[in-house]
Amino acid sequence: MPPETRPAVAVDQARLWERHLEMARIGGTPRGGVNRQALTPEDAQARALLARWGAALGLDASLDPIGNLFLRRPGQDASAPPVLTGSHLDTQPSGGRFDGTYGVLAGLEAIEAIGRVGIETRRPLELVVWTNEEGCRFAPGCMGSRAFAEPGLLDRLLAARDLDGIRVAEALHEVRTALPSTVAPCGLGGPVAAYVEAHIEQGPELEAAGRVIGLVTGIQGRRRILIEVHGEDGHAGTLPRRRRKDALSAAVAMIQALEVLMHDPGDTVRFTVGRVVVSPNAPSVVPGHVLFTIDLRHPEGGTLMRLGDAVETVCRRHVGPCTVSVTDVSLTMPIRFEGLVPDTVRTVSESLGLPSMPIASGAGHDAENLHRVCPTGMLFVPCEGGISHNEAESAKPEDLAAGAQVLARVLVELAGPAGGRRG
Amino acid sequence: MPPETRPAVAVDQARLWERHLEMARIGGTPRGGVNRQALTPEDAQARALLARWGAALGLDASLDPIGNLFLRRPGQDASAPPVLTGSHLDTQPSGGRFDGTYGVLAGLEAIEAIGRVGIETRRPLELVVWTNEEGCRFAPGCMGSRAFAEPGLLDRLLAARDLDGIRVAEALHEVRTALPSTVAPCGLGGPVAAYVEAHIEQGPELEAAGRVIGLVTGIQGRRRILIEVHGEDGHAGTLPRRRRKDALSAAVAMIQALEVLMHDPGDTVRFTVGRVVVSPNAPSVVPGHVLFTIDLRHPEGGTLMRLGDAVETVCRRHVGPCTVSVTDVSLTMPIRFEGLVPDTVRTVSESLGLPSMPIASGAGHDAENLHRVCPTGMLFVPCEGGISHNEAESAKPEDLAAGAQVLARVLVELAGPAGGRRG
Repeated sequence: MPPETRPAVAVDQARLWERHLEMARIGGTPRGGVNRQALTPEDAQARALLARWGAALGLDASLDPIGNLFLRRPGQDASAPPVLTGSHLDTQPSGGRFDGTYGVLAGLEAIEAIGRVGIETRRPLELVVWTNEEGCRFAPGCMGSRAFAEPGLLDRLLAARDLDGIRVAEALHEVRTALPSTVAPCGLGGPVAAYVEAHIEQGPELEAAGRVIGLVTGIQGRRRILIEVHGEDGHAGTLPRRRRKDALSAAVAMIQALEVLMHDPGDTVRFTVGRVVVSPNAPSVVPGHVLFTIDLRHPEGGTLMRLGDAVETVCRRHVGPCTVSVTDVSLTMPIRFEGLVPDTVRTVSESLGLPSMPIASGAGHDAENLHRVCPTGMLFVPCEGGISHNEAESAKPEDLAAGAQVLARVLVELAGPAGGRRG
Repeated sequence: MPPETRPAVAVDQARLWERHLEMARIGGTPRGGVNRQALTPEDAQARALLARWGAALGLDASLDPIGNLFLRRPGQDASAPPVLTGSHLDTQPSGGRFDGTYGVLAGLEAIEAIGRVGIETRRPLELVVWTNEEGCRFAPGCMGSRAFAEPGLLDRLLAARDLDGIRVAEALHEVRTALPSTVAPCGLGGPVAAYVEAHIEQGPELEAAGRVIGLVTGIQGRRRILIEVHGEDGHAGTLPRRRRKDALSAAVAMIQALEVLMHDPGDTVRFTVGRVVVSPNAPSVVPGHVLFTIDLRHPEGGTLMRLGDAVETVCRRHVGPCTVSVTDVSLTMPIRFEGLVPDTVRTVSESLGLPSMPIASGAGHDAENLHRVCPTGMLFVPCEGGISHNEAESAKPEDLAAGAQVLARVLVELAGPAGGRRG
């Protein structure tokens, strides 16, 4: 078989870029970012726009019980499990235009390009929008792909509530009624031949190395730990140091000691204290209570466990006159992408002559749930300055198009030629 | 003149205690504390209760333009400037039952005791409730006494807003309409013969030394400094340490270095970081912005200035890849109470045989503004464990009564006997 370059050539850089701009207007913020949290009216509007674009290409839309949206291009063999590609359309409260959205629009562009050059595949191709990847309105994140991989979780996930007490099930009902009537209901989960997800890197390495395609080797593991320091409120003017139980002072000592513990000359350990809540948080009151979070990530499971397990000892050593409780909130072990999908991504990138490099994903993605279901892989494209989860998030139109070119050819390879043997 | 012990004997410990409990029900919290912030409906209700108690004793109530409430017991010489005593009825959001309230109720008890034994004084006695001492709803604190000492500040203070955008002037209007119609308006400021304020110590020293009366030598100076650290939001999973501008990491290093700077083997320096605001404060986002406050106090002006001036240098040294701005928010130089009022407090305490000791006030008080207007002094009584600005704040009924006994005799001394010479 000759190398199949036609779909890559048919990728339209301008169309792909324009769709990003149009999508970014839904939930667009004054500072050029996007606030389109999961299952909000904006999320529904974004899905409806995508469904209209899909309908114009003849794709059939369906929605499963957790709100994952599928746009299907039939294959020659209607009974063959589909090849899936996609990502998510929800964002952080001060999110950007490309995180998630790129994987969805690159998938749409790839399928459109395949259609324009008249290629039929044996397996169906499905573009998927996973529900609530970000996990900021409803916890946990990657909710849609999680339910897809493990349908038994559905009821528990539908019962999750946001800060206003609204359940996923209720928010989902509103989203469903806001979608065009052409979107049919479908079941949860099912066999999948392969999954490939395109995404912006959300880090600086591709840009720094001058590469266009990141061959994603896996997703680093992550561990969330919650630290609560209990001291005693006191009067800032009257209480001498020797009688204070200053929870902030203890927390500060703990964080500094944790930074020493996590120090890594190779800069592979990702250690972040992102949230600190001080109580009563008044200038003239010695803080009696401090809560802080640790987000710890590493591509090696052993290191992740060793460092995470050492947190409590370090905190206790710096507790001073206070007390501390250390709670493991969540743990996701690292995964590796191997075999069919990453091999195909690498081969296609090389044959298109695009500069690429292996890269580990620092962020979590829906692909980590699909990894449990079917052969799975990801490809990254650079983003400007490595900035993500930020309204300033940006990317170059030509890099986005290059990723869609790779994706289009990978999908054709994975779905197999029409007339080929069953598999 | 024989030593005047009659009013001290007439102080009723049970009545004084019961009034504290009744007052504590207004804004009472489930944990036994009080949330009665300045110019709230609870504050108005507390003032109304006090005005009713005063009316039963024949005291005339009046309210000045900043909401300071005066209950007047006439003297023989109606034209003589009054002797003032009092404190405040507003509390911190999680405040206690005695801070401020004690000075008001001890003043009421003293005036009631003086009346019960039939003593007439030459000067009028006035019990005063100063508006917004705590400064937590509206800044600055000690607002009422500040306006009293410097009436030219009135318009600026009336324009201060709380977090909901409500101005002092508006909140004050509501308080005024909630008070009994017998409360007459009066002008701001005016001549005062002397001011004496009773207060719980809010520190542990009297209790530790087994003394009942603190002879307050002065109020330590305080300086408020605001530190803002500017970094850059980033993705916790993807951004390597070398590329982070982690504002929290920098702030933690600053706070630890400031603790070293402020270290004082004699434990006289009071250094508190009470408020920390992290942004965006999400577990998976490297914090791009941190604000924290410094509350620095010291009884010596020179030390206060030297330490406060060193803050910026220390912060800049630990700024790392971020930037920092250091802003002086307020500065109150230390004051000393000397002469008439503290001498009288000491003499009376000794003549009553109450164990006393000199003590510096760690907290600010309305007395620091009156100090600019007239001879001024304070007396402290112990509070349990030195705990204050805390719902657990407590004090012993017999200590509260001892303070009111001293106060009653001090008021008689300062106001002078009826029939005495003008002065």
